[in-house]
Amino acid sequence: MIERMARFVYDFAEGDKDQKDLLGGKGANLAEMTRLGLPVPPGFVISTDACRAYMATGRHPDGLDAEVGEHLRTLEETMGKRLGQPEDPLLVAVRSGAKFSMPGMMETVLNVGLNDDSVHGLAATSGDARFAWDSYRRLLQMFGNTVLHVDSSLFGEALDALKDERGVTADTDLDAADLEALTSTYKAIIDEHAGRPFPQDPREQLDLATTAVFDSWNTDRARLYRRQERIPDDLGTAVTVIAMVFGNRGAGSGTGVAFTRDPATGAQGVYGDYLENAQGEDVVAGIRNTLPLADLERIDPASYAELMRIMEVLEKHYLDMCDIEFTIERGKLWMLQTRVGKRTPEAAFRIARHMLGEGLIDEDEALRRVTGEQLAQLMFPRFDSEAERDLLATGMGASPGAAVGRCVFDSATAVAWAERGEDVILVRKETNPDDLHGMVASRGILTSRGGKTSHAAVVARGMGRTCVCGAESLDVDVAARKFSLRDGRVVEEGDVISIDGSTGEVFAGAVPVSDSVVVRYFEGSLKAPDDALASAVAATMDRADDVRRLRVRANADTPEDAARARRFGAEGIGLCRTEHMFLGERRQLVEDLIVASDTEAQEAALAALLPLQRQDFTEILEAMDGFPVTIRLIDPPLHEFLPDLTELSVKVATGQADEHDRALLDHVRRLHEQNPMLGLRGVRLGILIPGLFAMQARAILLAAADRRDAGGDPRPEIMIPLVASVRELDVVRRTIATVADEVTAERGPVEFSVGTMIELPRAAVLADRIAQSAEFFSFGTNDLTQMTWGFSRDDVESSFFSTYLDNGIFDVSPFESLDTLGVGTLVRIGTEKGRATRPDLHVGVCGEHGGDPRSIHFFHGVGLDYVSCSPYRVPVARLEAGRAAR
Amino acid sequence: MIERMARFVYDFAEGDKDQKDLLGGKGANLAEMTRLGLPVPPGFVISTDACRAYMATGRHPDGLDAEVGEHLRTLEETMGKRLGQPEDPLLVAVRSGAKFSMPGMMETVLNVGLNDDSVHGLAATSGDARFAWDSYRRLLQMFGNTVLHVDSSLFGEALDALKDERGVTADTDLDAADLEALTSTYKAIIDEHAGRPFPQDPREQLDLATTAVFDSWNTDRARLYRRQERIPDDLGTAVTVIAMVFGNRGAGSGTGVAFTRDPATGAQGVYGDYLENAQGEDVVAGIRNTLPLADLERIDPASYAELMRIMEVLEKHYLDMCDIEFTIERGKLWMLQTRVGKRTPEAAFRIARHMLGEGLIDEDEALRRVTGEQLAQLMFPRFDSEAERDLLATGMGASPGAAVGRCVFDSATAVAWAERGEDVILVRKETNPDDLHGMVASRGILTSRGGKTSHAAVVARGMGRTCVCGAESLDVDVAARKFSLRDGRVVEEGDVISIDGSTGEVFAGAVPVSDSVVVRYFEGSLKAPDDALASAVAATMDRADDVRRLRVRANADTPEDAARARRFGAEGIGLCRTEHMFLGERRQLVEDLIVASDTEAQEAALAALLPLQRQDFTEILEAMDGFPVTIRLIDPPLHEFLPDLTELSVKVATGQADEHDRALLDHVRRLHEQNPMLGLRGVRLGILIPGLFAMQARAILLAAADRRDAGGDPRPEIMIPLVASVRELDVVRRTIATVADEVTAERGPVEFSVGTMIELPRAAVLADRIAQSAEFFSFGTNDLTQMTWGFSRDDVESSFFSTYLDNGIFDVSPFESLDTLGVGTLVRIGTEKGRATRPDLHVGVCGEHGGDPRSIHFFHGVGLDYVSCSPYRVPVARLEAGRAAR
Repeated sequence: MIERMARFVYDFAEGDKDQKDLLGGKGANLAEMTRLGLPVPPGFVISTDACRAYMATGRHPDGLDAEVGEHLRTLEETMGKRLGQPEDPLLVAVRSGAKFSMPGMMETVLNVGLNDDSVHGLAATSGDARFAWDSYRRLLQMFGNTVLHVDSSLFGEALDALKDERGVTADTDLDAADLEALTSTYKAIIDEHAGRPFPQDPREQLDLATTAVFDSWNTDRARLYRRQERIPDDLGTAVTVIAMVFGNRGAGSGTGVAFTRDPATGAQGVYGDYLENAQGEDVVAGIRNTLPLADLERIDPASYAELMRIMEVLEKHYLDMCDIEFTIERGKLWMLQTRVGKRTPEAAFRIARHMLGEGLIDEDEALRRVTGEQLAQLMFPRFDSEAERDLLATGMGASPGAAVGRCVFDSATAVAWAERGEDVILVRKETNPDDLHGMVASRGILTSRGGKTSHAAVVARGMGRTCVCGAESLDVDVAARKFSLRDGRVVEEGDVISIDGSTGEVFAGAVPVSDSVVVRYFEGSLKAPDDALASAVAATMDRADDVRRLRVRANADTPEDAARARRFGAEGIGLCRTEHMFLGERRQLVEDLIVASDTEAQEAALAALLPLQRQDFTEILEAMDGFPVTIRLIDPPLHEFLPDLTELSVKVATGQADEHDRALLDHVRRLHEQNPMLGLRGVRLGILIPGLFAMQARAILLAAADRRDAGGDPRPEIMIPLVASVRELDVVRRTIATVADEVTAERGPVEFSVGTMIELPRAAVLADRIAQSAEFFSFGTNDLTQMTWGFSRDDVESSFFSTYLDNGIFDVSPFESLDTLGVGTLVRIGTEKGRATRPDLHVGVCGEHGGDPRSIHFFHGVGLDYVSCSPYRVPVARLEAGRAAR
Repeated sequence: MIERMARFVYDFAEGDKDQKDLLGGKGANLAEMTRLGLPVPPGFVISTDACRAYMATGRHPDGLDAEVGEHLRTLEETMGKRLGQPEDPLLVAVRSGAKFSMPGMMETVLNVGLNDDSVHGLAATSGDARFAWDSYRRLLQMFGNTVLHVDSSLFGEALDALKDERGVTADTDLDAADLEALTSTYKAIIDEHAGRPFPQDPREQLDLATTAVFDSWNTDRARLYRRQERIPDDLGTAVTVIAMVFGNRGAGSGTGVAFTRDPATGAQGVYGDYLENAQGEDVVAGIRNTLPLADLERIDPASYAELMRIMEVLEKHYLDMCDIEFTIERGKLWMLQTRVGKRTPEAAFRIARHMLGEGLIDEDEALRRVTGEQLAQLMFPRFDSEAERDLLATGMGASPGAAVGRCVFDSATAVAWAERGEDVILVRKETNPDDLHGMVASRGILTSRGGKTSHAAVVARGMGRTCVCGAESLDVDVAARKFSLRDGRVVEEGDVISIDGSTGEVFAGAVPVSDSVVVRYFEGSLKAPDDALASAVAATMDRADDVRRLRVRANADTPEDAARARRFGAEGIGLCRTEHMFLGERRQLVEDLIVASDTEAQEAALAALLPLQRQDFTEILEAMDGFPVTIRLIDPPLHEFLPDLTELSVKVATGQADEHDRALLDHVRRLHEQNPMLGLRGVRLGILIPGLFAMQARAILLAAADRRDAGGDPRPEIMIPLVASVRELDVVRRTIATVADEVTAERGPVEFSVGTMIELPRAAVLADRIAQSAEFFSFGTNDLTQMTWGFSRDDVESSFFSTYLDNGIFDVSPFESLDTLGVGTLVRIGTEKGRATRPDLHVGVCGEHGGDPRSIHFFHGVGLDYVSCSPYRVPVARLEAGRAAR
């Protein structure tokens, strides 16, 4: 009896689908199918424990090889053959398989067990010498490259040379003798370049292949992929050892992939491809055109019926759409892989609703099957699927959207062309902070290097620009203002391209863009029953609305935005920023206020602003009639309404300035702040110039009175920004109370409430005190994130965020998704303390996190009353609020 | 029997000194002296409860007048006279007296009880008709003005007219008949201007006088005073009604003030002034020169002996230096007031030690009797007390120090003159943010308006400039560049003045400044036994050092500062800022680093900095040998080492720039940040450019190895700034560990530790995680205050802090004294969470709050291990740390 430190190897029959941690995704699902009695070739799994032990020490852990030996014996008994037995050899495939799928990243070795002797046995038992020598040739090639690190092109060149010699072009034109000769060439190549001969011992082949799979976990490309996909580096891979079956044994053989439903559209009915007389890698290699799966019914009705039965079993068992790989060897169907299938957002919505209709899953599960991110993807305009497309390259979809424009290769050109009205796409090898202006000016950004945490990706997502990054087949030549492709095509500055930020595709020319069906449904221009996707989304949204506890409001500063938000399902406005109402022609009035030399001039400027503000508020209250409208009093520092100090200084110094500029420069200098984010803004400004907040409060209350008199149901909520102390709030409330008394005297009582942003750490920590003077809280998680981390989004997103993501300090930008650990703790403390003082305190959030799925789940958990987000995120928030509640 | 709602009136015999809340300071101490059996004229106190009830309703509360009646009857019985009785009238003084002394702010009415009848009785019983009519005249004047609001100048003019008529100059030259005539004139003035006659009913006089005292609580000047002194507005004043005694009854009468010790120097032995044949207000008015108290022994040995006995009783009873007011009426001594006396900082130290020596108080009490602020005052250079001084005016001492310079009246001149090497004093009516540059350029600031929370005061304290504000007798004429005084003197631009920021005094010309005795003692140039003050301070510091639990370190960036701090008692360096080592000639190397186009050039720049840094650290470690030296790796953003963007842009645009400037402008633009405080700095910079921190770590460890090899005891602690996440710390620790391995290989092991600043709210909230990677914490309360409140000191102190102080949002700037409620909560959370992970975590504070007395008590309470502050604050911190422990 052998003493063991740990158990490392499991037969398929010992595992199940929930053991992905231990057996990897592939191994666990093979085990599950084995347990279901489906036709899986026998085999066993070397667990991730073994891989981790190997990674720690650099050698197979004690006991592993003995365990493999035991399981191999069981396998041999099952198959009635022995590994590499000369007469009738058992051959195995050695495959990688980690917990999370890493397609194409790790290694596989097929046909392990063949050697100079057993190749003859395989020829004899199969009656097909060509097949046997071809299989051996493939093993030598794969083993030589993967295990012994011989450059794969050496094998390719030898094969090409042989074909030239024989005067043929296709591999299939080589006969058994040719291939036998090729094996000799291959073995010689290995001898020369690996510094050792190809191992004839089948067990040595197996062990070396296992080591090679372990090693492939830590190749550069695998590490890079994991970093981009946020897969931990310490998981390791399992190794599946499975008896070989052959789809390349003639007319009765073949191989295929299939989905239990259409993964692109979600349409019901199986969907797949079949290739006769071929092995799996031939499908991937695209050597011959595949047949639609339906053709198998004609070719091999028995196998087809069996496959249909199995797919139904799998879908009923997994209760989800599955994808499978299968092989038919001389009329016998074998299942080689299954898993829950990846799908497009459209398919996700449609499949979930179909499965619900079929009784496979319930309403809650249907809701769990779709995500807000998928809905958001569906709301972007997309390239018209019917239109012709000329695919140039595929990179990573780093920031979604469909952008069309002329290529430019530097920021200055991007800015210059954009200013003259051109749509441009900025193309770079990679971006850095110097490219910021160019990125702002562009419709989209395309890079040839870098992943989802690269500078380009992070900044583009931050500013909502479409971005494709890491399109490695692009050779970008900035100096020559062009990029070239491997096929020799060249795209020059000014040429139009189209990039898809969801799929990562890059097309030549302008691909027509079409509106989202889902947006047309929300906007009311398309009825749900008229479109399968719209109808699935509509049903999903209804369910989400039924079950969610969180209300959803919108951030909207104009009547148009308010109306759109309402169509998208917003139940009020959570943030109406009043500073946006001081731009354009009104900027002059703000300037008048700033340069006012005395109280009288200040009051005159404010008096001129009052009717404009009143009109603004009346229209917004009308658009949101019957719903609460939270109006934030002016927040930014006044100098934001003046010209930039440096620009104006240069203008004055170079004599290009007029009298007005020169006078203004004094005020710009006076108001200049080193750190405007931390300066005279928000409630501080309101206390220093009480007339400003008083004017705004008066405009709000008069607008409410106007709406009320017009028969409306105005529900204004006045929100004070940047409060750190309850005393600040007290001071402002006194100002508002005075205004309210005056308006009441003129127009009769108007209903309104006064609350505060919680956006400074101090406000969160002292929320119990602040709640004494606030009827509602709204967490401003943008500013709260800035203050809690001590960085400003404008300054840091382009400077060090990509480095931080690469170093794993963030797994996502805290401006995209709430930092629940740090900032979230303050949100929790603020909510709890606020409600301790005022149990009926209404609490919401109005940062951009209000539209972020992960953050919404957190806000639900903390017990907020509502989230508020941009109009286009309102449906996303409704859906995620529903999912959070289930 | 009368039903009462509350009790409002107390006889002196019913109260004691601990009832200042109820009886006011004056009333409580009169009660105490009464209980001690000292000769206090009988009387009673109308409590602050009555005042508050009056303030709430605007009328005397129910029952008050009846209670006053009862107590008045008791008083009349004791005195054997009735109030205003025609034959032998009882007269009373009606005096204000709040919990906190508000000298000169509220009202007093003497001689209440005199009327047209009783004045004759007073003349008869006193045998002094002139005295009687003078007393009546005084009552009419005081009552007319205080109670009936008649302009006091009308009485003054009438008196002057009478003196002119009689051809005399002094009041004392008027005889009884003159004064009797004057009372008629005064009554006519009252009839005409008060719209009612002077009340002849003595009880009506008393009630109206009481109301007038209540009202005087809320005069504008009283409210202003309270705001400046941070006295709550809702306390109210008590009213003391006390039988009149008269020091103006001839040769055997007089009045005086005395201290049981010298309040200026703390010297032992009584100290005071005496004025024969006078009343208290005559002493204040300074009509005649007072005599030294010692002369009383000659004039009235019995009263003198009694006074000496009483002063001893009081000091033994109060166990502190007392000040008293007394009156002798015809050889009978009466005590009219006592309280614990105000004293100079010097006196505070000496008196505390003397009383300890005399066994009156114990060591802990002696420590409680002095404050760090007093010690700080003693450490400022002061105007030479022996030198001649020409006092021009007295304002408020708003920011301590002694400044001498030429007057300038605008910021531009201040800057221009300072640049050419002149010391200037900026004189303004008041300052505003536009004056900031001028304030920075000046040695001191003098304003004619505004109190301790005015812009000038707040900003001057923030920047450590000497400031006197609210010197109201200055008439500042900015346009004419001069100020004039009430006596007609004029000071013009360029004239030299001297201002004392502790006393608020303004002197003409240059008053010589002398070093502080206390600093000379700390510096070692004066031995404690050679000076009374130094010896008292030395003994006090010894005791504080014995009992304190908090260690005290210094913030020091140079060997000189480190050595000074050590002489001042620092037990290590809590913050050595390395960025200061990159200034001067080394700035070019930093520029090289910034403009480096590749890694090689960057490394070359770092390599050039390494030996310089190594030398810096060697010297500082030497100066603090045997004590810990916490070195903070570079914190500010790199662009701080480059020219200002606006200035450089103007220079380039106007063609004044050379090639170097033009090249640099690109880098300045690239690194420019909207909010540098929230930008690429601290650990972020260290992660983006790992070579920077690595170079510094190497320099520190090599310096430690050098010191060790030289026989020293170096104790470096490496501190990482601006950490928000433990992962940042992990990344940097790996860099440092690599460097340490290399240094160990070269030089053998070096002892050091790695810790972090806690200066971001996130770090405080997640201190448990951060402590996993930090061996020590140092709270950076400056940045923590900025982030918690969301404002930057540079930007806001000059813009809205004075408004905030005026509005009571702060009671002191949170940069001067820790905001214990908000920022303090994060300090507490950070400390508790940090120690939860690592019980032996060493925790200190290195913001400027480390030298602030109130903050030190908080840090002691929270359980920090040490505070670190500027070298000059080290003694203050030692003293307050001792006081906090007792």
